[in-house]
Amino acid sequence: MSILHVPLCERSYDVHIASLSGAEVADRIAAALGQPSGTAVLLDEHVARVSSRARDLLDQLHARLPGVRHLLLPRGEACKTLAQIERTTQWLAESGYDRSSAVVGIGGGATTDHAGFVAAVYLRGVKLALCPTTLLAAVDASVGGKTGVDLPAGKNLVGAFHQPRVVVADLGFLATVPARELHAGMAEVIKAGLVGDADLFARLEREAEAAPSPASLAALVPAAVAVKIAVVAEDEREGGRRAILNFGHTVGHALEAASGYQLLHGEAVALGMVAALALGEARGVTTAGLRARVVELLGRLGLPVDVKSRLDPDALARIEVDKKRRADAVRFVFVPSPGEATLVEIALPALLDQLVQAL
Amino acid sequence: MSILHVPLCERSYDVHIASLSGAEVADRIAAALGQPSGTAVLLDEHVARVSSRARDLLDQLHARLPGVRHLLLPRGEACKTLAQIERTTQWLAESGYDRSSAVVGIGGGATTDHAGFVAAVYLRGVKLALCPTTLLAAVDASVGGKTGVDLPAGKNLVGAFHQPRVVVADLGFLATVPARELHAGMAEVIKAGLVGDADLFARLEREAEAAPSPASLAALVPAAVAVKIAVVAEDEREGGRRAILNFGHTVGHALEAASGYQLLHGEAVALGMVAALALGEARGVTTAGLRARVVELLGRLGLPVDVKSRLDPDALARIEVDKKRRADAVRFVFVPSPGEATLVEIALPALLDQLVQAL
Repeated sequence: MSILHVPLCERSYDVHIASLSGAEVADRIAAALGQPSGTAVLLDEHVARVSSRARDLLDQLHARLPGVRHLLLPRGEACKTLAQIERTTQWLAESGYDRSSAVVGIGGGATTDHAGFVAAVYLRGVKLALCPTTLLAAVDASVGGKTGVDLPAGKNLVGAFHQPRVVVADLGFLATVPARELHAGMAEVIKAGLVGDADLFARLEREAEAAPSPASLAALVPAAVAVKIAVVAEDEREGGRRAILNFGHTVGHALEAASGYQLLHGEAVALGMVAALALGEARGVTTAGLRARVVELLGRLGLPVDVKSRLDPDALARIEVDKKRRADAVRFVFVPSPGEATLVEIALPALLDQLVQAL
Repeated sequence: MSILHVPLCERSYDVHIASLSGAEVADRIAAALGQPSGTAVLLDEHVARVSSRARDLLDQLHARLPGVRHLLLPRGEACKTLAQIERTTQWLAESGYDRSSAVVGIGGGATTDHAGFVAAVYLRGVKLALCPTTLLAAVDASVGGKTGVDLPAGKNLVGAFHQPRVVVADLGFLATVPARELHAGMAEVIKAGLVGDADLFARLEREAEAAPSPASLAALVPAAVAVKIAVVAEDEREGGRRAILNFGHTVGHALEAASGYQLLHGEAVALGMVAALALGEARGVTTAGLRARVVELLGRLGLPVDVKSRLDPDALARIEVDKKRRADAVRFVFVPSPGEATLVEIALPALLDQLVQAL
């Protein structure tokens, strides 16, 4: 059982990570939410359908909290639209939830992003608890307070920072995650090791396998979350250092969009990390040989590594569009050696040229 | 020229109130925004059409800030929907505005509520400057950081707290405001006097007239804003004392909704204040005779005062629905004498009974 503490400016909270019973998850949520006037559960419809854990958890929440009702959210990115936010907030209002109510989000990263944004804006903010049910949500989406939805123009362009009161990651849910998604989630675990925990990376190189055991996940997930917490606690609103969590994401986002979102986020990040390591080696920032070690590790987990064939003119153009929208200067994340990350400002044309040459 | 300082927890800002030239307004906005990477102006289409001041202000902003483009917003409550938020944020993204950009909102209270919410959620928050062009927006909507939009289920149910960098209220815009709206705005000025400034209330009793002179407004508006600032500074997120700004609003909101929004907000607040004073006198909380003085003042400004005929079963039922959504206990605001406000918890059935009896 791991309980990690997230120390933040205004209010701190805990992240619980273990294989838990529905009663244990509900106990932790009820303790963190105090006495809400009502409890609105937003539940990933896929999880509700495939997992008896979700139904058990709902029953256990009913037994502990007042005014529990639930709404099923469309699976995945389909729930991350302002139209879906209107649907959910209208349901909250019609159901009589008030400013002292709480929102509980149960599902993958899209569900926790949606639930977090709803909790941020309904009546200008209500309490939030999150139960991530996928590896990606457990190690990334549910921790850090970033919430939001997509626009036709791009992903996560509308959102808010809204910290949960508690995150309870019941690793039992991971058994319901398809192998491809589990592997994609492992890309973020590898990223966490690379940017912030050399021991975690060494452990992954030693033990990581395509079908991780529950015991292995029970060690890897808390280690990855701890890296994220350490970075977020230092830079809650992403003014500076938090950007190191975007290692592999500059190229990754572009490849994800260029694939029409056929690539999963973690798969795109895997490719982006290979590109960033190649560029780092070419510039002499990254220890020689690290790229090959990461390629071996990613390959062992069934993740794509051939970034060269995917980095076509369309993908390169998307890096340009993405970066122009977000900031004039490109702040690129390099990993000199496992557990270390550094931010370097690079002019955009130089970045694109060097990327193509390095690969 | 009045410059009022809003001292807040994270960051403070100034509210400028005067008859100003477009160049003077633009100077103040540019100084407060620093060096944004781009400047997105959201402009009330009605103001753009009827006021040459708006066009002049746009020209002056172009001369001082980088990347100025503007988008016209539908007038009034029509812009306060999540669909309109999607339209505006999509325009921001397509126009290339990034996290270092700023949003400038120019218009009435609906425009400033929309612009504020857009600034709160676009890329999880960008800088904001507001130029209120109506009396209601100048004395109420643009100060205090409350932003948001409506749902089919009710007004202002989705939103965020997002403080502007500066508010510049050019009183010259008020000449474009129809008389009925100007009077409705005066209801909030009277409310400010009643809950927080006995001198302001005395001045209103002495001088208020249906067609206020520019000199009169130049004195009244800063005094009303000062009351709001003092309350907001003490209770930024509306945990407690800030609720006194809702004087007249419990009954007012219900009457506004019951009228199908044919009553303007300020007109509904005028009626709600009469009801709250009647109830206060009946309970012995409010000095005898204050209700009659306020009725006289409101009547002089062309505002409705006959609350009895409007408080039918439909309106009473709306108080119940509204309060059930917002909180179990009703915290009702009473004014014992001008400049003083007090919060009293009343059980809902008792409140409705006493209201009917008092009127």
